[in-house]
Amino acid sequence: MEGVDFLAPERNKAQFDVEEMKIVWAGSREAFEVSDRMSRLVASDPVFRKDNRPMLGRKELFKNTLRKAAHAWKRIIELRLTEEEASRLRFYVDEPAFTDLHWGMFIPAIKGQGTEEQQQQWLPLAYKMQIIGCYAQTELGHGSNVQGLETTATFDPQTDEFVINSPTLTSSKWWPGGLGKVSTHAAVYARLITDGQDQGVHGFIVQLRSLDDHLPLPGITIGDIGMKFGNGAYNSMDNGVLRFDNVRIPRNQMLMRVLQVTREGKCVQSNVPRQLVYGTMVYVRQSIVSDASCALSRAVCIATRYSAVRRQFGSHNGGLETQVIDYKTQQARLFPLLASAYAFRFVGEWLKWLYMDVTRRLQANDFSTLPEAHACTAGLKSLTTSVTADGIEECRKLCGGHGYLCSSGLPELFAVYVPTCTYEGDNVVLLLQVARHLMKTVSQLGSGKKPVGTTAYMGRVEHLMQCRSDVQKAEDWLKPNVVLEAFEARAARMAVACAQALSKFANPEEGFQQLSADLVEAAVAHCQLIVVSKFLEKLQQDIPGKGVKQQLQILCSIYALFLVHKNLGDFLSTGCITAKQGSLGNEQLRSLYSQVRPNAIALVDAFNYTDHYLGSALGRYNGNVYPTLYEEAWKDPLNDSVVPDGYQEYVRPMLKQQLRNARL
Amino acid sequence: MEGVDFLAPERNKAQFDVEEMKIVWAGSREAFEVSDRMSRLVASDPVFRKDNRPMLGRKELFKNTLRKAAHAWKRIIELRLTEEEASRLRFYVDEPAFTDLHWGMFIPAIKGQGTEEQQQQWLPLAYKMQIIGCYAQTELGHGSNVQGLETTATFDPQTDEFVINSPTLTSSKWWPGGLGKVSTHAAVYARLITDGQDQGVHGFIVQLRSLDDHLPLPGITIGDIGMKFGNGAYNSMDNGVLRFDNVRIPRNQMLMRVLQVTREGKCVQSNVPRQLVYGTMVYVRQSIVSDASCALSRAVCIATRYSAVRRQFGSHNGGLETQVIDYKTQQARLFPLLASAYAFRFVGEWLKWLYMDVTRRLQANDFSTLPEAHACTAGLKSLTTSVTADGIEECRKLCGGHGYLCSSGLPELFAVYVPTCTYEGDNVVLLLQVARHLMKTVSQLGSGKKPVGTTAYMGRVEHLMQCRSDVQKAEDWLKPNVVLEAFEARAARMAVACAQALSKFANPEEGFQQLSADLVEAAVAHCQLIVVSKFLEKLQQDIPGKGVKQQLQILCSIYALFLVHKNLGDFLSTGCITAKQGSLGNEQLRSLYSQVRPNAIALVDAFNYTDHYLGSALGRYNGNVYPTLYEEAWKDPLNDSVVPDGYQEYVRPMLKQQLRNARL
Repeated sequence: MEGVDFLAPERNKAQFDVEEMKIVWAGSREAFEVSDRMSRLVASDPVFRKDNRPMLGRKELFKNTLRKAAHAWKRIIELRLTEEEASRLRFYVDEPAFTDLHWGMFIPAIKGQGTEEQQQQWLPLAYKMQIIGCYAQTELGHGSNVQGLETTATFDPQTDEFVINSPTLTSSKWWPGGLGKVSTHAAVYARLITDGQDQGVHGFIVQLRSLDDHLPLPGITIGDIGMKFGNGAYNSMDNGVLRFDNVRIPRNQMLMRVLQVTREGKCVQSNVPRQLVYGTMVYVRQSIVSDASCALSRAVCIATRYSAVRRQFGSHNGGLETQVIDYKTQQARLFPLLASAYAFRFVGEWLKWLYMDVTRRLQANDFSTLPEAHACTAGLKSLTTSVTADGIEECRKLCGGHGYLCSSGLPELFAVYVPTCTYEGDNVVLLLQVARHLMKTVSQLGSGKKPVGTTAYMGRVEHLMQCRSDVQKAEDWLKPNVVLEAFEARAARMAVACAQALSKFANPEEGFQQLSADLVEAAVAHCQLIVVSKFLEKLQQDIPGKGVKQQLQILCSIYALFLVHKNLGDFLSTGCITAKQGSLGNEQLRSLYSQVRPNAIALVDAFNYTDHYLGSALGRYNGNVYPTLYEEAWKDPLNDSVVPDGYQEYVRPMLKQQLRNARL
Repeated sequence: MEGVDFLAPERNKAQFDVEEMKIVWAGSREAFEVSDRMSRLVASDPVFRKDNRPMLGRKELFKNTLRKAAHAWKRIIELRLTEEEASRLRFYVDEPAFTDLHWGMFIPAIKGQGTEEQQQQWLPLAYKMQIIGCYAQTELGHGSNVQGLETTATFDPQTDEFVINSPTLTSSKWWPGGLGKVSTHAAVYARLITDGQDQGVHGFIVQLRSLDDHLPLPGITIGDIGMKFGNGAYNSMDNGVLRFDNVRIPRNQMLMRVLQVTREGKCVQSNVPRQLVYGTMVYVRQSIVSDASCALSRAVCIATRYSAVRRQFGSHNGGLETQVIDYKTQQARLFPLLASAYAFRFVGEWLKWLYMDVTRRLQANDFSTLPEAHACTAGLKSLTTSVTADGIEECRKLCGGHGYLCSSGLPELFAVYVPTCTYEGDNVVLLLQVARHLMKTVSQLGSGKKPVGTTAYMGRVEHLMQCRSDVQKAEDWLKPNVVLEAFEARAARMAVACAQALSKFANPEEGFQQLSADLVEAAVAHCQLIVVSKFLEKLQQDIPGKGVKQQLQILCSIYALFLVHKNLGDFLSTGCITAKQGSLGNEQLRSLYSQVRPNAIALVDAFNYTDHYLGSALGRYNGNVYPTLYEEAWKDPLNDSVVPDGYQEYVRPMLKQQLRNARL
């Protein structure tokens, strides 16, 4: 069987140049080349094996993760990999580990919040991994609301130190990844108290463990918070609990880029703008959006390939049954997710640009676009991660019963992905922030202040409030301006309706509370518009390769029309389109599904995922699904013996009616 | 802290008699009493401990399940429990095990498909557990389509035996629970071949393992198919793989109630109607609906209690933060699920009646209501299990980050529940069956054949096609007839629209294929109508207890109006209601949420779940959440040592820059 490509007939159907599509997906030829090389490097290295993960106990799993992290670091040094290459390598190792927090949160915190001196002191140590850091913010009783944190850092002018303390059980640091077992240091967020005054929450570098024997330093209680969702999944991470019993650190370990505490205990604001933190948030969230497209595309790749292999029903005269991918019900669930994966890829690409744009402006002390950029990234983080989490589970269901097996790769992918909906801003809380920004934008429309960036369409609110879609036949829905106007009108009308309802409340905050469910829906409409419009913008670029642009046009239309169908209530109740036009959209959608069908396998091949990275018996590149599933089964520890452990004590006495005497 | 009820203030707010609501939820005082007694029995028995499940390796977990099953059986015998009590006891043990299949599938298969003689031969052995059986139907390559099974049972007239064989890899039996390691026998489904003729799929009793030493009998290859979704979850079940190499069984082990094979190898149809199998399907699916209400209510109970404990934001002047349950966004996600749990409970109760009604009619050779009953149970199985699976995950998200911890109980509940969407009929395949029945019903409307049961409203199709809702103010949505008519009109119009679209196809089967996504939506509309109408019917009964009926009325309105909001596109595009009326419904919904709020904790108390059954640090009856979470954390194996296993080999060399020499 080795070498036979059971999906070759599918690949032959493709009407576009897959190799060119791979470049589009990767973002550039260089990005493709690095990803391709790193993914092969990981796939060919037995240390990075991951098929046994679901079967390992917690300790074994964790030890194995430490091994992989050390090995990855060794390879990075040996091969003198660039920062980008190292980051891709870690990505393809595909196992949550303390290094994610060290590189992704601890180092950026020092870079963003530390002074020049602090950066010079700590960054070289961190870059060489002579210290390992994590990011200790959330507490047992405090997640979303950073201002509610209870940990205190009290300045003691006698000794020129801060005293870090956990005054209550709920103030225990809880969740930080890498904290539980590995980190030697942490960026700890605590209420700064100087001279009896609460100065709000600030960051502090605190050493947690001895660099000699790894034991917790005096006054520090530390441990792992226990098993999380899924088998292997996120259990390779040592999310931790941390309590301080009046732990002292030198004054210069407060991250003082924005606010300084002097030797006398005075607080001095620096001339660095506070808005800088928002720049970091934009950065972190844009990378989450980019990861969403990876996770979703991975699930879609598995489900699409298996849907082409699997056959059910429809056999006539003893012939082959129908490929599941040919069923319209399957297409109507799978193809919108395929389209979403591409849509999120492109909006993620655009967010990278936005981050650079914001950074440039911040350096020039231009804060004008920051609120809009902040709202936009918050909204897109929420939208893309929610859709991806649900989408992975939908892909699992699209694989029928076998999707429930760990060897399908989908349960772990889901379990490891879902926390993204909660961390870095709970998705509903983020949508409320978007809604707040939208309400502010609407309220300022009369003032002459022009809405910018992704809210620019609000500047045409008068037109959008009364325009009518001129769709008359199904194909009219393929016109970019038709789609765009429908989404703009819907988003604008929902926002304006909320603003009008809000204005009836004497207390605006009370109104915001009462209407929050509607506000969330208006925010979603706005975010969907952004994704649609960025996809349409992408299509205005020059995209080389035979048939590549055509395929993307089809996917863009599917993405937009699927949303119209799914949110038809919004479009109809705001009067943006008529029921008849909605129905024409649905008709067009069916025809688009038929156009994607022959290209489906090639469109998921374009993600260029190795079998190692996919980690799925169902998603095998060559479609050799059933022998793979069969072989995987026998690896389970339960199959170590023919007669299971426990038979003699528990099963045999039952069968032999000797339970009464059995010691259970 | 022991004994303090942190949720007492919430319980004091309740405006109804919780004890009476417990009876309503249980179905009767007797049912409540049995459930209550059995749940306490399980909770107080240390053998049934389950908090350590997520941390156990597969073998340990499985051995522990065998122990629990044996202990449960011992207690059942010692206490001389009735069948109902035993079934409740197993329910509260709350761990998937081979016994589920033995009692739930193997025994019913013999009862339903075995002759009198076969029942007398096999049932006493099975009842005493002298043999343990499973249900071996699905194959590696064949799930939903039973007619596509490949396993053969060839009659050999020479020896008066059947030869059971697995001709291909894809014909391997795959998934049957209890098969992998425990069952001694199986009801095996295979293509009957007599005299070279394929007679379709039939059931056979096949012994798999020796009753002496539990080794597989000659010609039988058998094992576990490997890890499934989640930590403990369904991994306590030995879902199995089974291959036959020409295994011989006596002729009298074919289940011959409907079709007999004579000594000469002739097939003789008995006078038992084939439709009997549908009766069994109705039974199995009604129990799945009933289980859905249990699983959903359990998740809702956890999320509701924790939402009342958890506080985030909204603190003024240093006071307490706001209880999360007071946020409208939380209410708008949580309360519809609470309402759904009650709705599914009542529709499940009604399905029990339906099953008895069908059984009575079958005994009187009246098959007239069977197609409708079959479609109705198929649809309700699909609807309730899909909503429950999504609902559990939504409840997890409603608990914020902590919902991701296994100690919240929610990850395991989700992982153990989701296969319900696939087994006993894939949920989408089932909806297509419902759609087929609906299309048939519509096509017969002109013929004078009156639609029955849950399709009776189709008899008023002319009225329903043109009626208009007369909602003028928000409270009009509280009127049962207003709600019912809107749902009937929507379902009827969607079905008729599909029928009209279908009629345009020359080939109806091709049309059904092309329109299947729309047909699925019409089927969902029909099923939602059934749930709404059965809830409304329940409210017409006499329901004692102060305030009990009022609370149920509120929940029924929430259930219906939430569906109107969520499916607004349907209601608007079919012209059943206007955009203004939809908006009034939404307004009414907000007001209903406020009415539920003070009763929310008491409404989940009414489920009468023990802390053992809930298995959740977040769902504790007394609300003592944070100390419980904190204690649970330390039980993780990773906390056995302060310095983790692997530190010396992998972490220390990294920190000390000695990786080059390390052996990884």
